[in-house]
Amino acid sequence: MDGVILTPLKIVNNQKGDIYHAMKKSDDGFDGFGEAYFSSIIKDSVKGWKKHTHMTLNIVVPVGEIEFVVYDDLNGNFFSVTLSQKNYQRLTIKSGYWLAFRGVGENNILLNLASIEHDSSEVFKAELNEISYDW
Amino acid sequence: MDGVILTPLKIVNNQKGDIYHAMKKSDDGFDGFGEAYFSSIIKDSVKGWKKHTHMTLNIVVPVGEIEFVVYDDLNGNFFSVTLSQKNYQRLTIKSGYWLAFRGVGENNILLNLASIEHDSSEVFKAELNEISYDW
Repeated sequence: MDGVILTPLKIVNNQKGDIYHAMKKSDDGFDGFGEAYFSSIIKDSVKGWKKHTHMTLNIVVPVGEIEFVVYDDLNGNFFSVTLSQKNYQRLTIKSGYWLAFRGVGENNILLNLASIEHDSSEVFKAELNEISYDW
Repeated sequence: MDGVILTPLKIVNNQKGDIYHAMKKSDDGFDGFGEAYFSSIIKDSVKGWKKHTHMTLNIVVPVGEIEFVVYDDLNGNFFSVTLSQKNYQRLTIKSGYWLAFRGVGENNILLNLASIEHDSSEVFKAELNEISYDW
């Protein structure tokens, strides 16, 4: 999908506790820093749908396992990926795409490195059943 | 301590999983975005000491509990704070201070929103016993 980038991330092993890369400003997909926040998601719960008209999202899952589904309403295409420490990648989503995500593990947390600060005027929301996807 | 800022952060309750604020670019203590990474720290292990000569660190603990100790080698002062979801604050450390941290909980992860990308030439390292602190 055009506005979606998956970037494998490095885990640096350390006997006192591993280091997990997330993003450098020189990385592909970086579109400026506006805000960083964590979102936890309970197992089998789904948050979404939301479409940002300006924000680029850069999402990393340091804890648990989360399934992400991106929907392109211009052509009706879906893209999905499940991220965790085992599949440790950064998911970049440019503005203009719908996103929903589901908790897979027992404790699941994502970090979003958003390109702009939260602004409710640039977010469209839809109920889960308004975009039909077989979760 | 002059170059250290503690900022209480908001946790937004949500029945599908809470949201944990970390940093906005308009926040006090933000000094530019260079790199974001996670560091895990095993219970009772201590990572440190390190002193950055250019990087400002902005640290948040979304998982577990971590004790941070900052040492100012100009006047011999220590500052310490233990962060967790229960004491959910952002720890800003400007360049020029020594930092070490200890895992307190069973699973502990910090996020560092660093003002510059990693550059080993701006980091001084010292062994744990070179700066005497009663852990």
